[in-house]
Amino acid sequence: ITLNKPRIAITAGDPAGIGPEIVAAAVRHPKVLAACEPMVVADTVAFALHHQSLPNVEMLPVPGLKRKLTLGEPSKEAGRSAIECLRIALGLVQARQVQALVTAPVSKESFHLADYGFPGHTEWLAHECRVTSVGMLMAAGSLRALLLTRHLPIADVAAALRSETIEEGAALAHDFVKKILGREKPKIVLCGLNPHAGDNGLIGKEELKVFRPALRALRRRGISIKGPAPADSVFRDMAKGRYELALAAYHDQGMIPLKLFASDQLVNITLGLPFIRTSPGHGTAYDIAGKGKANPLPMIEAILLAADYARRV
Amino acid sequence: ITLNKPRIAITAGDPAGIGPEIVAAAVRHPKVLAACEPMVVADTVAFALHHQSLPNVEMLPVPGLKRKLTLGEPSKEAGRSAIECLRIALGLVQARQVQALVTAPVSKESFHLADYGFPGHTEWLAHECRVTSVGMLMAAGSLRALLLTRHLPIADVAAALRSETIEEGAALAHDFVKKILGREKPKIVLCGLNPHAGDNGLIGKEELKVFRPALRALRRRGISIKGPAPADSVFRDMAKGRYELALAAYHDQGMIPLKLFASDQLVNITLGLPFIRTSPGHGTAYDIAGKGKANPLPMIEAILLAADYARRV
Repeated sequence: ITLNKPRIAITAGDPAGIGPEIVAAAVRHPKVLAACEPMVVADTVAFALHHQSLPNVEMLPVPGLKRKLTLGEPSKEAGRSAIECLRIALGLVQARQVQALVTAPVSKESFHLADYGFPGHTEWLAHECRVTSVGMLMAAGSLRALLLTRHLPIADVAAALRSETIEEGAALAHDFVKKILGREKPKIVLCGLNPHAGDNGLIGKEELKVFRPALRALRRRGISIKGPAPADSVFRDMAKGRYELALAAYHDQGMIPLKLFASDQLVNITLGLPFIRTSPGHGTAYDIAGKGKANPLPMIEAILLAADYARRV
Repeated sequence: ITLNKPRIAITAGDPAGIGPEIVAAAVRHPKVLAACEPMVVADTVAFALHHQSLPNVEMLPVPGLKRKLTLGEPSKEAGRSAIECLRIALGLVQARQVQALVTAPVSKESFHLADYGFPGHTEWLAHECRVTSVGMLMAAGSLRALLLTRHLPIADVAAALRSETIEEGAALAHDFVKKILGREKPKIVLCGLNPHAGDNGLIGKEELKVFRPALRALRRRGISIKGPAPADSVFRDMAKGRYELALAAYHDQGMIPLKLFASDQLVNITLGLPFIRTSPGHGTAYDIAGKGKANPLPMIEAILLAADYARRV
């Protein structure tokens, strides 16, 4: 059995946040150790700072970082640490030394201060892998939502949802459910943008003018997606097992139900990369960094999903 | 004990929908009979059509309606029936013959065909009671959301949310939690409009320009409301008991979590009327009308809440 366990590279993310704590807790967890061989890629300074040690796991320290870090605040050093760990971890995946990548949260502000030219992990990874289309899939237990738009003001969402956006997301989602979840006939649904999915054009025209044409185009490509369906029914129905994945039109449409349903299991899965990459669905939580209050459950779930998915790639 | 039971007027709503069925089932339910004295105001034709009878409850039939009704479709007759029942029920409340009003769902299309000039129940009631400001509060177990905007396209929501809209909804909500739920210090939260409640202006300016000023104005009136808070945390936190009520910026923001959390207990409560009025949080369900498939649980919950609240008015 041990021979079949996938090796998983795990980065500690922003060293001034809760990343090192949740990684240290997660790689001790019996379920994690039973499911994979974790390989932590982390700034040793960060772990010393958090008074964390990592027994019984392979640790690949990142050399050459300056020793100045303050817990709980963004900095250029923290951003550099996060990126350099990520760079080594990516190398491990690309060299097939590990089968999947799990990343602890980074701070967009630290990233910005470190001046790498990318707002976060995902964009950096997409660039390094020369991938143009990546999808952000969020999972919380049996609820899964791919976010078609992300950090956009609500006023800009309707204009941003073009047919190509929907088709691109749908194709990534379909591929994931089929190959990674192993379902012959994926049960995927597209959420409407408007209340009652527009009620046949009475409450907004986007469902008729954009959403339905996108679904027709997808059907011609052999990808069958249900909807557009009223979003307030979609997540209730998914909890009952009717769907495996929903395409959410905007951030809160997907995140509200997932966080309510199982925030301890909230995991971010990047679709479109040439390998499996997961991440806990929360941020750096600077306010509680180093206080021993961080909840490692989402990180544990991120590792377990990565290990599970890595077997099926 | 019996002497203290409130009398509740219950209308059967659109007679071509599931209204008569769920009313017939609900008024037989032991919990309902223990909590109140139900008084059904219904078109007798409707009940005959559904092969439903109403033993052991007071029934006040509506005279003079034409006998032509087809189950499962909107019609002028169905709209007239719904309104005429409502008119009698309103009279009973105004004459203090009953302490609260519970209404089964109506069809907006039947209402339109009957040509009363109101899109639905709530608007008709507000007009008849000469009330200009009513609030639509949805409850599902311990989750409660007042919808600040309702059937608006998402693209129009930001512009519709003015400071007055928020203040008006907040005042109604505060009054409800204080007087009807009986909490000395209401724990109410305003959901942000944008992802992460705008992240301090990085993802939309509405929270800074409209939401915060509205909360400041409310505080000057002695109404303390938390937020604007990220909506994806609000409902998770409310499920843990941190809040009693959330002000939702738009329909799906409130309805997605409530339906996921407890759609069997989904109840619509109208705030701002001079009496308690509740309604199950679903529609006429024409597709299953008369088939014996209708779920009476939300109607039962609507009656139980009305009976509970009526004691505290």
